Amino acid sequence: MIGGSLAKDLRHARFADELTGIEANSLHAKQALELGLVDRIETFDNGIKNTDLIIIAIPVDKELDVLPAVLDGIDRNTTVTDMGSTKKVISDLVENHTNRKNFVAAHPMSGTEFSGPMAAIEGLFNGKITIICDQEKSGPQHLALVEKMFQSLGMNIAYMSSDEQDHSTAYVSHLPHAAAFALANAVQDKEDRNIIFDLASGGFRSTVRLAKSSSTMWKPIFEQNNKYVADSLDVYIRHLQEFRDCMKNNQFDRIEELILNANKIKTILDGEHPHFIKNEKKIVKLYTKQQ
Amino acid sequence: MIGGSLAKDLRHARFADELTGIEANSLHAKQALELGLVDRIETFDNGIKNTDLIIIAIPVDKELDVLPAVLDGIDRNTTVTDMGSTKKVISDLVENHTNRKNFVAAHPMSGTEFSGPMAAIEGLFNGKITIICDQEKSGPQHLALVEKMFQSLGMNIAYMSSDEQDHSTAYVSHLPHAAAFALANAVQDKEDRNIIFDLASGGFRSTVRLAKSSSTMWKPIFEQNNKYVADSLDVYIRHLQEFRDCMKNNQFDRIEELILNANKIKTILDGEHPHFIKNEKKIVKLYTKQQ
Repeated sequence: MIGGSLAKDLRHARFADELTGIEANSLHAKQALELGLVDRIETFDNGIKNTDLIIIAIPVDKELDVLPAVLDGIDRNTTVTDMGSTKKVISDLVENHTNRKNFVAAHPMSGTEFSGPMAAIEGLFNGKITIICDQEKSGPQHLALVEKMFQSLGMNIAYMSSDEQDHSTAYVSHLPHAAAFALANAVQDKEDRNIIFDLASGGFRSTVRLAKSSSTMWKPIFEQNNKYVADSLDVYIRHLQEFRDCMKNNQFDRIEELILNANKIKTILDGEHPHFIKNEKKIVKLYTKQQ
Repeated sequence: MIGGSLAKDLRHARFADELTGIEANSLHAKQALELGLVDRIETFDNGIKNTDLIIIAIPVDKELDVLPAVLDGIDRNTTVTDMGSTKKVISDLVENHTNRKNFVAAHPMSGTEFSGPMAAIEGLFNGKITIICDQEKSGPQHLALVEKMFQSLGMNIAYMSSDEQDHSTAYVSHLPHAAAFALANAVQDKEDRNIIFDLASGGFRSTVRLAKSSSTMWKPIFEQNNKYVADSLDVYIRHLQEFRDCMKNNQFDRIEELILNANKIKTILDGEHPHFIKNEKKIVKLYTKQQ
């Protein structure tokens, strides 16, 4: 889904002239060709040769095998980037690789709950933010090419360390997914659950939407970011417990305070993104393609 | 928002010829007139006279004052219905009222996170489900008129007791709201939260969308349904704790099982609603307007 959506937009933006797919799943390979997402399918060994840019868009556990193999086999000038939601484990793995400078660690904050080539959609990345991690470890030409790619997709770019990305992403993406999985399971526990599903309103649907996401993608994300996700779950559970305790102890004025505080997320979410965050210590900076 | 959206659709469906507003908030009264949602604004005493149908669309705590006053003052043939998300407290309150038969307790499972006349939208109710509670306590003509109204909006109707509605709605609506409020508060706790908001992706936005909902509406809902909502929070917290514990203890095969179980919500949510649920004991039945 991510690879296919990228292919559509990179071709449309004329960033890419030729797109080659390397795909372990033969049905997905066939679909990618039929849908015109790629011009050809190649074997791993052939596919990584004679290529300007290699984009790895696979589950993060598979990336632990694929990224080192790619870096082992590429031509001298090939740039490599990835789309994974976790970065610390992967960055540590290739920290001392001879071709580390060819790699730009990236995480576009965009996706849907669907997977596979048939789920590829146009414009998925436009207006969204991508994170580039540990930029100082990438060669300047490789960094520039990947930045140019994301800008051609209409994305803003945030720069931070792999560790900070895993920490922030735990809250903004992994925790909401864990919350949705747990909510789906909680509701399915209820006796007479058929009634619930018949009643399922828009609010319920949007809250559990992420619970449709695939375990192939999410199990390894939770595995690689387990510490920060567990921490964020601790914080979340404490907030839920306070809510529940207020409910049990009839402290509804406190409930009102909690709701009013939660409402503040409105102005924050609906506000304009500050395209620059000055935080030299953490190397966090956002910029737009207009710069 | 609910009252205004109803007004738009009831006029459009030619269910209503004349719409009178009774509104405590003078700005909202002015806006409702300017937007053409209502033909006139009346005082309470004048507004409830010479009316075929009175629809109460206000926070459920205010309804505890308004519903008895309406039932006290209406003409003999006037039908009264409401839109509140909780039903047990309100139903018990008017259980023995002389005009109980004029009242049809209802809860349309539809809304947005916004409020006020400016937030009124067309088609809000179309294809959604409404719950009618304790139908045997309403006179047949009053029940028929309210059913006809919901059908003119394109809604399906589910019938159940007030207690069962509060129980089911706790899971399908009140719990997701509590979860969103707590998630918004958890994320706002994080140090360096500006980074998080800049990164906020579509998944995060859809999961916390409900956290924008107003405390005026939600505090009294939690107050009136505190027992069932606290129970549902207990179940949810247990599921989150299991997720967190698996994460801390590196039990990722179990995480995979939890995700796969959560995924089942996909087929349930995306499937067709079974328009009939046979459950005589609980008087639960769904039907479409095509019947």
